[in-house]
Amino acid sequence: MDVFDVIVVGAGPAGEVAAGRVAASGLSTVIVENELAGGECSYWACMPSKALLRPVDLAGEVGRVTGLRLGGPIDAAAVLARRDAVVSHYDDAGQARWLDSAGVTLVRGTGRLAGPRRVEVTTADGGTRTLVANHAVLLATGSRPVIPPVAGLAAARPWTNREVTGVRAVPDRIVVIGGGVVACEMAQAMRGLGAREVTMLVRGGELLGRTEPFAGEMVARSLADQGIDIRMHESAEKVERPEPGGEVTVRLASGGTVTADEILVAAGRRAATDDLGLASVGLPESGPIEVDESMRASGVADGWLYAIGDVNGLALLTHMGKYQARVAADVVAARARGEADDRPGMRDRADRAGAPQVVFTDPQVCAVGRTEAQARAEGFDVRVVEYDMEQVAGGYLLGDGYRGKAKAVVDERRRVLLGVTFVAPGAAELLHAATIAVTSEATLDDLWHAVPAYPTVSEVWLRLLEAYGL
Amino acid sequence: MDVFDVIVVGAGPAGEVAAGRVAASGLSTVIVENELAGGECSYWACMPSKALLRPVDLAGEVGRVTGLRLGGPIDAAAVLARRDAVVSHYDDAGQARWLDSAGVTLVRGTGRLAGPRRVEVTTADGGTRTLVANHAVLLATGSRPVIPPVAGLAAARPWTNREVTGVRAVPDRIVVIGGGVVACEMAQAMRGLGAREVTMLVRGGELLGRTEPFAGEMVARSLADQGIDIRMHESAEKVERPEPGGEVTVRLASGGTVTADEILVAAGRRAATDDLGLASVGLPESGPIEVDESMRASGVADGWLYAIGDVNGLALLTHMGKYQARVAADVVAARARGEADDRPGMRDRADRAGAPQVVFTDPQVCAVGRTEAQARAEGFDVRVVEYDMEQVAGGYLLGDGYRGKAKAVVDERRRVLLGVTFVAPGAAELLHAATIAVTSEATLDDLWHAVPAYPTVSEVWLRLLEAYGL
Repeated sequence: MDVFDVIVVGAGPAGEVAAGRVAASGLSTVIVENELAGGECSYWACMPSKALLRPVDLAGEVGRVTGLRLGGPIDAAAVLARRDAVVSHYDDAGQARWLDSAGVTLVRGTGRLAGPRRVEVTTADGGTRTLVANHAVLLATGSRPVIPPVAGLAAARPWTNREVTGVRAVPDRIVVIGGGVVACEMAQAMRGLGAREVTMLVRGGELLGRTEPFAGEMVARSLADQGIDIRMHESAEKVERPEPGGEVTVRLASGGTVTADEILVAAGRRAATDDLGLASVGLPESGPIEVDESMRASGVADGWLYAIGDVNGLALLTHMGKYQARVAADVVAARARGEADDRPGMRDRADRAGAPQVVFTDPQVCAVGRTEAQARAEGFDVRVVEYDMEQVAGGYLLGDGYRGKAKAVVDERRRVLLGVTFVAPGAAELLHAATIAVTSEATLDDLWHAVPAYPTVSEVWLRLLEAYGL
Repeated sequence: MDVFDVIVVGAGPAGEVAAGRVAASGLSTVIVENELAGGECSYWACMPSKALLRPVDLAGEVGRVTGLRLGGPIDAAAVLARRDAVVSHYDDAGQARWLDSAGVTLVRGTGRLAGPRRVEVTTADGGTRTLVANHAVLLATGSRPVIPPVAGLAAARPWTNREVTGVRAVPDRIVVIGGGVVACEMAQAMRGLGAREVTMLVRGGELLGRTEPFAGEMVARSLADQGIDIRMHESAEKVERPEPGGEVTVRLASGGTVTADEILVAAGRRAATDDLGLASVGLPESGPIEVDESMRASGVADGWLYAIGDVNGLALLTHMGKYQARVAADVVAARARGEADDRPGMRDRADRAGAPQVVFTDPQVCAVGRTEAQARAEGFDVRVVEYDMEQVAGGYLLGDGYRGKAKAVVDERRRVLLGVTFVAPGAAELLHAATIAVTSEATLDDLWHAVPAYPTVSEVWLRLLEAYGL
């Protein structure tokens, strides 16, 4: 039996940040991981997907700029090699070294709760090791892709985010189940890297359902222009793959079939709570772990259990997991020392305000805070302003055919922003200004004095405020 | 004699914005312009310079991204044609239509003050027209390039920002006098568009002297890597150009000569107040016009005279001129109606906080607020944090060899940002977040909850706050 001040289960971005921060506060810290330290984001999600998308995105930009032309199609083999470098060739030695330098003990194995403050680890060799925490256990086990219960789908061994971001040879034909972030980004990546036929099966009538409706519409139009076949209100009824790794045939709900060389399932994710021993501490055995604003799991006596990142279901985004990790780590350290646990950084404000997110399609979709629909549903006195970003000089200068749209959701009572959405090529870095404005609840009168530099795309801020009537 | 409520002299960005806003408030408005409506920015500065730089900048990005290569050098002729479209072929019919639609009367000619509330206009045909204002006269005549008193320089008819942004054939060899924004941007543009020899003569020991020192250092390194010959602590002693438009020889202060096909003077600008009739209202005849925070000229009885944009010398930047125009227009309209003239939008806060600016070199330089040196000189309790942006995942993903640096100047007493500088390729859109943070005086504790989306370059915000100790 090993005793530590704090046990972290799961060494993805949230777990690593929490462990590093707790250890820096002087508490002895152990982190348990059964795959690669660094987690989904580093090896199978954010990092490799952006490595695949960057050249595709930049090729799109070149296509809009007079005077430049590419010397040929994208060199997919070179891009995949760069992707391999970005994921450190699926080797976590660098992360392990970082944990070591941060004073965090890494235990490789599968951790599960075995009663209060106790974690049992099944190690790779089948052995068992028991860890006990003096102060806290932080669960950061992330999420797993959902495979919908379609006949033959699981047996066809479809790609998930892992296989598609790790692609060794771009399939000639690929069918994508889903219309969310992973589906849109990876459809664009596969198409841009050479796939001849990309077919998206989207159950609903829109892409990117959680954002403002115009975002999904603009992305759908662009993906279609890029040659992707988007089937709305469509789903797979049956999947057949006679030869493992061979051709896949999808029978569609509307009738007809799609045949492809590969199938990608991007139909959402669920909290990775199976086999985590939650029942041993009186919590439901599956589903996301409910937490309070200090990331403490609800309904656990003595409040020693925390859940951060995807596993709490608040926002399935790396940066939000890391943010929650900072909140939890500071709270855990303060409580361990018997200090005040309500200082400014010790409560989750960002999830409440609405997590920022960027979708790295072309156009990029950036949003923070509440959509108009959310704000109205919550009873705010809402006013909306919109602006076409190609009318901003900085947008026009980025290239011919540049198109974008901005939307701000204003709380009329307090004259602050509840939410902002930008959809435009290369818009990713526009978001943080909105995140600061929404989070700090800057008034429109304050924002009026924040002058966007000319000629940047950020001048859309001025246009939005003028459209509001300032 | 024509009577208007408000007279605006100069139809550049500041004048146009002021006139449009004043007219929208219901006041009869006339604007006087002796060149093109739209001003320096639209035809001879921001717009054409960015049209020239965009393909050069993007070619630099392509060079950093694995899997893409250009099909040849930049097609300079195509870029110049696009530039011509961006400047509307030096035709201001569109701007004139806009003024008309905004209810502003455009008078073409040279306006000068002729006593209180009175402007005399010399029209193109040599006639004279007298305008009288019921309420206010706004001066918005901009600035002119300074030609240093170097022997033979004026006689050599050097290029200024006008000729270089309007280039018809990129010179094979060009010598640039100056090390500020125009010098750096245009040196890069000429080199990127095909100039074989670009030589910069920089009087001091650094480029971009008004920004944090590291900005100029990083730009100098990059320009040198691009093949530009930067001579620090160097100046022209004599210029010879025997044939008009022919070869130019510059004799250097250090000895030796530089011979080129063209010479560009980018050695600063001065307020365009000559021949503006300032003495007729008791003001000094030259130099910038001093204003209060409502843009009202100091020392004029009855306070009917305002000065906005470059002519007041506060900040020689289009966006600041337009901002000052909004301040002045709202103040003028309120005072004309006898209403309160101290509402939130009616005082210049942005110039006081430190104007935001982007330099569109590669790397781009973005800065807002005070530099460390300025903040210390003003007696603030300063703490500085810095971060190398290539260590941010979002930066690393932008390309091999991506390098950048961020610096934040913190007011320790209030825990707010006094200034922020980013230097990195494509960093322009990072600036507005800093502008909002500095202007609205968001506390570091508020900024801590503004979570940058992963993996964007904006994650540098998190790194800066962590470096600070949050």
